[in-house]
Amino acid sequence: MPVNSSHTLLTGITKQDPRAIGRAISVVENNLSDAAEILAGLDPKRIENALVLGITGPPGAGKSTLTSSLISELRRRNKRVGIVAIDPSSPISGGAVLGDRIRMMEHALDKDVVVRSMATRGRLGGLCASAGATVRIMAASGCDVILIETVGVGQSEMDIIRLADITIMVLAPGFGDDIQAMKAGLLEVADFLVVNKYDLPGADALRMEMQQIFVQKEEESNIPRVLETIASENSGIKKLIDSLHSFEAYIETNSIKTKRRHEALDSETLDWIFEILRPRFTEQLKKDSNPQQTDPRIRAQQLIANTPNG
Amino acid sequence: MPVNSSHTLLTGITKQDPRAIGRAISVVENNLSDAAEILAGLDPKRIENALVLGITGPPGAGKSTLTSSLISELRRRNKRVGIVAIDPSSPISGGAVLGDRIRMMEHALDKDVVVRSMATRGRLGGLCASAGATVRIMAASGCDVILIETVGVGQSEMDIIRLADITIMVLAPGFGDDIQAMKAGLLEVADFLVVNKYDLPGADALRMEMQQIFVQKEEESNIPRVLETIASENSGIKKLIDSLHSFEAYIETNSIKTKRRHEALDSETLDWIFEILRPRFTEQLKKDSNPQQTDPRIRAQQLIANTPNG
Repeated sequence: MPVNSSHTLLTGITKQDPRAIGRAISVVENNLSDAAEILAGLDPKRIENALVLGITGPPGAGKSTLTSSLISELRRRNKRVGIVAIDPSSPISGGAVLGDRIRMMEHALDKDVVVRSMATRGRLGGLCASAGATVRIMAASGCDVILIETVGVGQSEMDIIRLADITIMVLAPGFGDDIQAMKAGLLEVADFLVVNKYDLPGADALRMEMQQIFVQKEEESNIPRVLETIASENSGIKKLIDSLHSFEAYIETNSIKTKRRHEALDSETLDWIFEILRPRFTEQLKKDSNPQQTDPRIRAQQLIANTPNG
Repeated sequence: MPVNSSHTLLTGITKQDPRAIGRAISVVENNLSDAAEILAGLDPKRIENALVLGITGPPGAGKSTLTSSLISELRRRNKRVGIVAIDPSSPISGGAVLGDRIRMMEHALDKDVVVRSMATRGRLGGLCASAGATVRIMAASGCDVILIETVGVGQSEMDIIRLADITIMVLAPGFGDDIQAMKAGLLEVADFLVVNKYDLPGADALRMEMQQIFVQKEEESNIPRVLETIASENSGIKKLIDSLHSFEAYIETNSIKTKRRHEALDSETLDWIFEILRPRFTEQLKKDSNPQQTDPRIRAQQLIANTPNG
């Protein structure tokens, strides 16, 4: 189909044609034959310059609402915005979930907002790889900022967050003990912590608790790292974006951004490696459906020895 | 050290010695030299007979409280109980988080309650493998029921849930849109849905919504699948356990349990495969620290070709 040739798609991406962008993402996500050609043809300068924001947090913290407010404010500042929504639902519901969310609807007709959602459930790996490629296509289509939104408590979601230049963790009052369990993980992964639903009881205590965790990071860069929002009222959003841009300048000058991009590439590569190897081993497991060996570790060693690399 | 030889540990496991159990889990989790010998020496009959329950749900739904109530009721029924708590925190906080949770403290001195927590964050795979081995050791030490508790929205947490014979998803009112996003995934993974915090507003509506989703499953087995609890008041717990035991009988008579155990073994084996391969590829990535190839898929193919299997 010449209409979908990689050359046509690449031209379409540069011209910001939504259909070409969508089609190119599908080609890359499903690893169709033109995938490599498309990825190789994307404008590297645009990819380098785009800012990739990771937005994560537990269900109910208000990530979608915050994401929507961020989009509105970024559009007000004339930025073209991409959104990769990592969706914990089954592939049965496809990419429809995000579209269903009422708050995203207001951006549906804006051609400078590019939305793509990806299901995690039922997918056998490869999510990080697909998300990485999607981010690049969006960047090459002129998106200045790309938001990756994910429900962030799982390991695979955390792997995706490694694709981001800057990571924002969204919390809200009322999660009780589970916040304690996340504490140490927060520091490891989050550059910014947003206490959303700041009008709810307990918000102030949560902010203070978080500020103690982030005190060292704040001193390093001299940029506030714990911010409060009421995303449903667009409150606190401007300050959040200003802080994000200050932090962007900070990570650009001291090469943190470059280092993070390298790590992202490694992470994607490792994901691709498993994406390529997984079907080979799943096939082997099927053949070995009535295993003699019931110690899974020894069975794994045997399967590796019997599965060719190439 | 003869005191920790696998033979001594195996004898200790059979005698329900807490130190031997803990040490054996560490040996297996860290894949030390005696791991295979320990796993091969565990009583297969006890492993077969134990019931493995997976408890999952978003943060704040009250999983820990529910788990604690389940333990109390199971102990009242004279069952020996194991708990594998999958902890989303960093390894920095180690296994201390669960121990810190006040509600678990009441079981701390009960020698028929065996607790082990495992961190997901910072761990490079292998969680499913470790959890599977831990479940087996607990079962071999005479645990009748083993609960695997995990914060369930991520893919790796879902992989762990595959180790369970029966999976319970815990929800509570007030999660808004995110519940919608989880809907399709629920059916795929959950045998039972517990609406916890049933005294909160919105609980009834949530239960009715869930009942619509589970109607077909209920008709299949004629066992209630959507149950309400107020775990903090031990309300609804007896009925939940009765339903779980009815369902256990159901999956035993129609071979679902056997099929699930086979799938669990496959899942663990695949996890071990990646556990074994991951360090090899991470090593290769390090050597290739300034990659010529910036398309991660092509780079992955090159690395696979250059990494020997054996």
